[in-house]
Amino acid sequence: MIKKIDHVGIAVNSVSSVKTMFKTLFHLEPAFEEVVEDQKVKVVGFRLGDTNLEFLEPTGPDSPIAKYLKKRGEGIHHLALGVDNIEETLERFQQNNLRLIDETPRQGAEGKLIAFVHPKSLFGILLELSQEKPE
Amino acid sequence: MIKKIDHVGIAVNSVSSVKTMFKTLFHLEPAFEEVVEDQKVKVVGFRLGDTNLEFLEPTGPDSPIAKYLKKRGEGIHHLALGVDNIEETLERFQQNNLRLIDETPRQGAEGKLIAFVHPKSLFGILLELSQEKPE
Repeated sequence: MIKKIDHVGIAVNSVSSVKTMFKTLFHLEPAFEEVVEDQKVKVVGFRLGDTNLEFLEPTGPDSPIAKYLKKRGEGIHHLALGVDNIEETLERFQQNNLRLIDETPRQGAEGKLIAFVHPKSLFGILLELSQEKPE
Repeated sequence: MIKKIDHVGIAVNSVSSVKTMFKTLFHLEPAFEEVVEDQKVKVVGFRLGDTNLEFLEPTGPDSPIAKYLKKRGEGIHHLALGVDNIEETLERFQQNNLRLIDETPRQGAEGKLIAFVHPKSLFGILLELSQEKPE
């Protein structure tokens, strides 16, 4: 089942200007910064209660985020839901004929298992399912 | 200061198909449903921890959401941050030359005070600031 909104992912040209603005406007420092090689993005995350705001800057022109920025410009890119059993969730999505981008989970940041669902299936939302690393 | 992500607002053609899908996929029922006359939208909200997912269906062709749907189609429309002092936050935004859609707060759903900030000022994010009704 869904446990929470894990994060909102936002495509930006520069995470460094995000950091400056969050410091100025909200006196907020990032909770984490990392490069996710698999997605070719630099991620800066701010923790707000249960949910993170994650800003994504492409590290190269072949990053999916670079392509998104070229097509749509900066903005909210995806929504990630934290689930307790990602395999079971993907199976239920398939039974209901949702279009999956990842049919099996793959490794995300912080040891999480993740999978993306196509926006055509879910009201224009690019959905990420995310399951915490088992203890 | 920011207290939490209050909600993510999603523009849809029909909240009734959202309800069906959330029931099927997640066994989730809406936490609330209401019509916000001021914005000309029907809202269906699901509570996920601290944060709501709010699906917005236009109630008429002159609704801002109707215009959005016509231009961009269904998808994530705005991000709302819960703040403890909306007047002070708006003032700080103005001092930093952010473009405000609402220069003073107005009445939102559930007695909240709300104000929107232009996406041009904030990495393509249409931001809603929201302050809870005082006890």
